[in-house]
Amino acid sequence: MKLLKEKMVKEGKVLSETILKVDSFLNHQIDPLLMKEVGDEFANRYADQIITKILTIESSGIAPATFLGLTIGAPVVFARKRKSLTLTDHLYSSKVHSFTKNETNEISVSKNFLSADDNIIIIDDFLANGEAVKGLLDIAQQAGAQVVGVGIVIEKGFQEGGKLLREKGLRIESLARIKSLAGGKIEFFEDGEY
Amino acid sequence: MKLLKEKMVKEGKVLSETILKVDSFLNHQIDPLLMKEVGDEFANRYADQIITKILTIESSGIAPATFLGLTIGAPVVFARKRKSLTLTDHLYSSKVHSFTKNETNEISVSKNFLSADDNIIIIDDFLANGEAVKGLLDIAQQAGAQVVGVGIVIEKGFQEGGKLLREKGLRIESLARIKSLAGGKIEFFEDGEY
Repeated sequence: MKLLKEKMVKEGKVLSETILKVDSFLNHQIDPLLMKEVGDEFANRYADQIITKILTIESSGIAPATFLGLTIGAPVVFARKRKSLTLTDHLYSSKVHSFTKNETNEISVSKNFLSADDNIIIIDDFLANGEAVKGLLDIAQQAGAQVVGVGIVIEKGFQEGGKLLREKGLRIESLARIKSLAGGKIEFFEDGEY
Repeated sequence: MKLLKEKMVKEGKVLSETILKVDSFLNHQIDPLLMKEVGDEFANRYADQIITKILTIESSGIAPATFLGLTIGAPVVFARKRKSLTLTDHLYSSKVHSFTKNETNEISVSKNFLSADDNIIIIDDFLANGEAVKGLLDIAQQAGAQVVGVGIVIEKGFQEGGKLLREKGLRIESLARIKSLAGGKIEFFEDGEY
């Protein structure tokens, strides 16, 4: 997605060979127009699918997921993150390890909002090791729901999450796939290049 | 706002005389169309003001704030919540006590995204005791920014946050103001009724 990649190059900060900071439009400050374009692009890529629910995780997945939801007319459910859950009643929950923050969070979704009748798309801001997507897949499976695919804003294509999940047959649509952050420069995979 | 009040009556769950659960469209599952209407209504009410930045707090403020941002062409910044901050460098931060959850969170915003040039509107999902708004005001003041006003989706008008903040001269636009939750029933203030 051209607009997204341009924004990443212009405003992203390469902090190391594995860390790109995009706080100015995605993770802390949000560019609403870009998020609308991102949501619309997810809708285009999954136009062949019937989606009844969008599953994301707080907080940076919420804006793109909500624009997708507006475009396709489906509600969004965001999984909540907690260090530990005291109340696990009536919840689907799973554990997600963040390598960046070196912490494990329990994520949870109320059983009221996902069911075996749902066709779900999973949306997230970043895909690196795939931990968040795996946790959301686990929750979708607990609900007995079908997962149509995954939509990712930025994939760190040099880390293995995307590869492992695709090998399992999961459809993943990433709007920008980073090949390398070496030398402080963002290099992208072309569409279809792996 | 009629659509919002109808949704609250239809789907909201009155758990006690002070607690209304609106998980099905605002706090856990999100209704994108309603959030768009909410964002547009905030834009209408503040159409007389020049707003350069929208300040909210993760997670339930993000969807309405982002729709407002799209409509008026301003970026959104969401304050992050943490139990304690290890890294306080280059951050504005404040403490927010949640009476519902009985916990105090540190909230923070990067100094990169708020400045003395900004005209800010503060957006949040609920206003009860006003703790979150006070924390966001504190952050705006640290940045030297002007606060044009506050936009709240649901105000618990029987709690004192709104009254105290209005007495200080702060403009607060609440799209639904609850007068009472007695007897398991939602009673609203009329527009302009206090």
